[in-house]
Amino acid sequence: MRRLRMAMIGGGPGSFIGPVHRIAAELDREIELVAGAFSSDAERSRAAGLSYRIDPARAYRDVAALLEGERARGDGADFVAIVSPNHHHLPAAKAALAAGFPVLSDKPLTATLAEAHELANAVTASGLAFGVTYTYSGYPLVREARERVARGDIGAIRKVVVEYPQGWLAGAAEGKQAEWRVDPARAGEGGCIGDIGTHAFHLAEYISGLRVNRLFADLGTVVPGRLLDDDVAVLLRFENGARGVLLASQIELGELNGLRIRLYGERGGLVWRQEEPNSLVVHRADGGTEILRAGTALGAAASGATRTPGGHPEGYLEAFANIYRDFARQLRGEPGTAAPGIDEGLRGMAFVSAAVAASRDGRGWTDFNI
Amino acid sequence: MRRLRMAMIGGGPGSFIGPVHRIAAELDREIELVAGAFSSDAERSRAAGLSYRIDPARAYRDVAALLEGERARGDGADFVAIVSPNHHHLPAAKAALAAGFPVLSDKPLTATLAEAHELANAVTASGLAFGVTYTYSGYPLVREARERVARGDIGAIRKVVVEYPQGWLAGAAEGKQAEWRVDPARAGEGGCIGDIGTHAFHLAEYISGLRVNRLFADLGTVVPGRLLDDDVAVLLRFENGARGVLLASQIELGELNGLRIRLYGERGGLVWRQEEPNSLVVHRADGGTEILRAGTALGAAASGATRTPGGHPEGYLEAFANIYRDFARQLRGEPGTAAPGIDEGLRGMAFVSAAVAASRDGRGWTDFNI
Amino acid sequence: MRRLRMAMIGGGPGSFIGPVHRIAAELDREIELVAGAFSSDAERSRAAGLSYRIDPARAYRDVAALLEGERARGDGADFVAIVSPNHHHLPAAKAALAAGFPVLSDKPLTATLAEAHELANAVTASGLAFGVTYTYSGYPLVREARERVARGDIGAIRKVVVEYPQGWLAGAAEGKQAEWRVDPARAGEGGCIGDIGTHAFHLAEYISGLRVNRLFADLGTVVPGRLLDDDVAVLLRFENGARGVLLASQIELGELNGLRIRLYGERGGLVWRQEEPNSLVVHRADGGTEILRAGTALGAAASGATRTPGGHPEGYLEAFANIYRDFARQLRGEPGTAAPGIDEGLRGMAFVSAAVAASRDGRGWTDFNI
Amino acid sequence: MRRLRMAMIGGGPGSFIGPVHRIAAELDREIELVAGAFSSDAERSRAAGLSYRIDPARAYRDVAALLEGERARGDGADFVAIVSPNHHHLPAAKAALAAGFPVLSDKPLTATLAEAHELANAVTASGLAFGVTYTYSGYPLVREARERVARGDIGAIRKVVVEYPQGWLAGAAEGKQAEWRVDPARAGEGGCIGDIGTHAFHLAEYISGLRVNRLFADLGTVVPGRLLDDDVAVLLRFENGARGVLLASQIELGELNGLRIRLYGERGGLVWRQEEPNSLVVHRADGGTEILRAGTALGAAASGATRTPGGHPEGYLEAFANIYRDFARQLRGEPGTAAPGIDEGLRGMAFVSAAVAASRDGRGWTDFNI
Repeated sequence: MRRLRMAMIGGGPGSFIGPVHRIAAELDREIELVAGAFSSDAERSRAAGLSYRIDPARAYRDVAALLEGERARGDGADFVAIVSPNHHHLPAAKAALAAGFPVLSDKPLTATLAEAHELANAVTASGLAFGVTYTYSGYPLVREARERVARGDIGAIRKVVVEYPQGWLAGAAEGKQAEWRVDPARAGEGGCIGDIGTHAFHLAEYISGLRVNRLFADLGTVVPGRLLDDDVAVLLRFENGARGVLLASQIELGELNGLRIRLYGERGGLVWRQEEPNSLVVHRADGGTEILRAGTALGAAASGATRTPGGHPEGYLEAFANIYRDFARQLRGEPGTAAPGIDEGLRGMAFVSAAVAASRDGRGWTDFNI
Repeated sequence: MRRLRMAMIGGGPGSFIGPVHRIAAELDREIELVAGAFSSDAERSRAAGLSYRIDPARAYRDVAALLEGERARGDGADFVAIVSPNHHHLPAAKAALAAGFPVLSDKPLTATLAEAHELANAVTASGLAFGVTYTYSGYPLVREARERVARGDIGAIRKVVVEYPQGWLAGAAEGKQAEWRVDPARAGEGGCIGDIGTHAFHLAEYISGLRVNRLFADLGTVVPGRLLDDDVAVLLRFENGARGVLLASQIELGELNGLRIRLYGERGGLVWRQEEPNSLVVHRADGGTEILRAGTALGAAASGATRTPGGHPEGYLEAFANIYRDFARQLRGEPGTAAPGIDEGLRGMAFVSAAVAASRDGRGWTDFNI
Repeated sequence: MRRLRMAMIGGGPGSFIGPVHRIAAELDREIELVAGAFSSDAERSRAAGLSYRIDPARAYRDVAALLEGERARGDGADFVAIVSPNHHHLPAAKAALAAGFPVLSDKPLTATLAEAHELANAVTASGLAFGVTYTYSGYPLVREARERVARGDIGAIRKVVVEYPQGWLAGAAEGKQAEWRVDPARAGEGGCIGDIGTHAFHLAEYISGLRVNRLFADLGTVVPGRLLDDDVAVLLRFENGARGVLLASQIELGELNGLRIRLYGERGGLVWRQEEPNSLVVHRADGGTEILRAGTALGAAASGATRTPGGHPEGYLEAFANIYRDFARQLRGEPGTAAPGIDEGLRGMAFVSAAVAASRDGRGWTDFNI
Repeated sequence: MRRLRMAMIGGGPGSFIGPVHRIAAELDREIELVAGAFSSDAERSRAAGLSYRIDPARAYRDVAALLEGERARGDGADFVAIVSPNHHHLPAAKAALAAGFPVLSDKPLTATLAEAHELANAVTASGLAFGVTYTYSGYPLVREARERVARGDIGAIRKVVVEYPQGWLAGAAEGKQAEWRVDPARAGEGGCIGDIGTHAFHLAEYISGLRVNRLFADLGTVVPGRLLDDDVAVLLRFENGARGVLLASQIELGELNGLRIRLYGERGGLVWRQEEPNSLVVHRADGGTEILRAGTALGAAASGATRTPGGHPEGYLEAFANIYRDFARQLRGEPGTAAPGIDEGLRGMAFVSAAVAASRDGRGWTDFNI
């Protein structure tokens, strides 16, 4: 059973996320990176190809060349991963789908909701697989949490609090990673809310198994002169009436990547923190509190997402690899969890759009249906 | 220098907070409990007097008898502590002030904002000292945080997140502690927001040194049939434009008394958690993170509020004792921190009232001035 | 039921432990400090009396005067607490017992094992109550741990690791607290091992319910010029064959008061840390891990040692108060836990003596029987 | 620059460590697994080859066939990784070296010290590169700690405490992983001390930069009927006189893989825990405590060993990959950290041998020189 062949769009020199996608894709030897259009600058794309140690002939000058070149080969790419800034997602994905390649795209899905709908139509029309790397849903204990909620361990959900504090954009946004994220032309209409708020939103719906259907948003721009939001508070209602709070910030100095979530039901609660991802706190109905550890006797979802025994920490790259592995198995037609798909991508963009609009217009509570 | 003599109103059999006030008051030997009207039931008041080991003659049948009795003695009480449920605060405090006794009252100040104003007027008219036991401002590291913010260590405050999760009212409210808290006739117009939201509100203003001047409130009643809020989210703006989030809940199963606060400024951040109160996380301007520990070389405010060397945990009772000691010194005319006073009490009630009204009316952002 | 009256020996100006004993004794209103010989300097004893706010006539110039004065009064002290440096323990305790006063003494029992035997004989001869403040056995979760071990929750004990790291004597020993502890004339034959090793030793035997009967000791003096040990490793065997490790140090820079213990049995394990004393980790037979919290539904021993609901941290002073309360109830003839007594005190001194001798002589494993 | 080609010996069906080596080797795309003798059973070796997705022709029936086959190919393996149980290490490594292949071997180096010396001679004679996967020295913050010690941040080391608690062998040793570890014929003369004690020993010497030159050992067999040690305490002296404690256990129920180390010097201390590997606690000379986080502005050694920004947890596989990357760069003749080599492997075996002998003979302190 051969490895699936992956072509990458984006991930050129200086990219943080390109190498992360490469490692995640290849971790389980189900996929290998074979080609890429790593930069819109041909020279830089070539340099990136060398750094990835792929065949230099397959480090293409642009997306069109990549798709054409790979389609022409007998051993061409099986799918395309898109890891470029947000405004590139739509054209890249549409081109890849049009050329017959399944796509695994970074989040947020696109730069705007309109683009997201356009992409969703293209996906439907293509009949091809399409995934979105909501990385944090790849963590074993996130999956354990989801499984426990689904089987009713904590009863009907009453409350969800998801927070995503970061501090790296508390000052001037300098460097390749920062600059595009604060530029509406490249990031889209959401700043912090698009970049990390979408992760938090997906995580809340993913674990709870519930959809948000109403929200109140308070987006702020704290750093003077910035054009997009950098600090976000959104109050939520879920379809079953559960109450929710979503906080995200990129100006909380000293916070690194502090995504965390807690869910409370009629019979218990669950608490998970991304920076210590190998533990899950379970508050039981009887008042007791347990600490679950990755790699120990957990449910099928968590066990299947763990590669080492308990006490051998796995982290972000392994979680990311789980998304890739899910996508690979989906492409092979194997049973198992699918990667997050176009619907989740679209919901994320609808959330950004609804929150930006509601906050800007000073609207109160807003229905949220998609 | 003799100990100040304290009379207690409330704190009868089954009370949790009465013994806590007694311990806190006496911890530093600056105060001693000598008398009380511990219950509105004379027999129960007498029983409580025995349990406190005070002179049986000074366990009075009601507030009036207490005030009259103590005023008549040469060695009568120097001040009155009020620890009964909210709806008793106003009549008890007014009577005590009218009888010439300074008052230290539990929070929230009263059951309603109207009562709070009435009490504030009575305090002003009396010219007597009046304190409110916002206990959590008694913790050494809370005071260290306040001192650091005041001297500009983290620069201008941009963001405050204060959370107060509890889970003990997630089911039916049973038992003496629970019953009055969910009864509007005794608790007042706020449930969770009055009981613990006021603590969170005070803590945010106390450490930041800033006043909230605008809010959006989302109060919910999660447990079916309950008449007051039990789950609270309030978005805040502070007078300097800083953004804030205040969360409080009594239905988050498994949470005990998880008050915590984090503040971020232009040059750093501070994080404190009540359940591990002897540490303060400091995020510095240069990106470094320090852990401060109570009892080590800290500022004057923290050092003065600590009784043991570092590594000897102090807790809730010691924090409470710091409020009492502040009040005692205030009564003696000694220099130092005053206990939280009528203004802080009034602001807390105004916060409850504004949040309850704003949430009920579906109002959007509401100005908050008092 | 009146409060018991306590006289204190030691605890003069600059003492850390004197005020701690005073607070602990009085916390539950079962005891009150009424008299003392706080210093061997009459003037300083008087000053301390003022700081404790006791009747100036009862701040005596020396121990003899105290004992005589209190014996002569109708309302004289009911017992004596000894809180002075180690070399004072024996003469003070013998004098107090001879004068008919029960004694509660700080640890270690005496300066040398010979003194300890002499004191034990005096206690026996007197027929009076005698307690030793092994403070850490007063923590609720330490008592919960002991109860769980005793009822077999973790099966037969196989392994105990107790550690007590401190760093405050890593440099020159300056200040009142430090100086006598490194002086053999005042501290006795053990330095670190006597000061904190005895706490660790008692805790291990207290929770495990097992006696050490064999040891290998490695005591070191790390700070140049010091005359007593400041860093200690002792390997242990318990009477049932269980293996043990006891580490104590006062030169581990940055450590405050990090006493902690972990016990493993055939069916589980228990982990407790003094600096976060309100949690106990329980490793169950089935591989699960629970976190117990003070103030929640625990066993009788822990519940009886807690004054506040879960989530309201109690600490060192409250643990200390539990020892005092136990002693008070013992004096009153009430049922309940007794304070640690002369046997535990004697075992602690035997441990110091055996370890010091074994380490000095380069002996290998040494039997330890007393 | 092509990837280095790796052949694996061991790592057949059911192996935990085989897939770990594969992932670690390939993580940075500097190495690829191309061949293996995965099992001494030809059929099982073939099955493993399929699971690794390598060319079936290169899943050899035994070591001899592997070495011969790979040597004969133009694109044959560049080096051999040995991941089989301990007793296979010597013959496999000798054969590989004799066939001209550099070797990267799992730890402990061999089953006995005599074998270790034999292997060391073979390595010297071959002139080929030889590495040992002391995985934990691959963690970024372990390297930061080493760098800080080396540049004198905490002054001369006075004390090292390294602990390695596990609980998975507290019962009967069942399953492929467990069985050989408790069998002297396969594991060698050390049980727990060889399996994990060697990791702890290496870590202590690696970070401190100091060699142990004296020890006292107390090895125990707790589980009835077991033939090798499963619980270990060793007291240490380092060449500069520093004191040390090394604890390792496989019977501490509930412990997963709790390797941790703390080092104290004249001017500070360092604390690191494998199960939360992305933080390092630094106790400064001035009494302050800092928390360092992987992926933030750290020294060159840590930065070079990190692939993601702060707050994106990296774990065991990434640490392992750092050892492989070091080895790959060594093979390519690039500058940088070398993987732990034959000397460290040999010291580990000498430590096992000395501790086993000292403990068995009831010897006291033993010199330890190699």
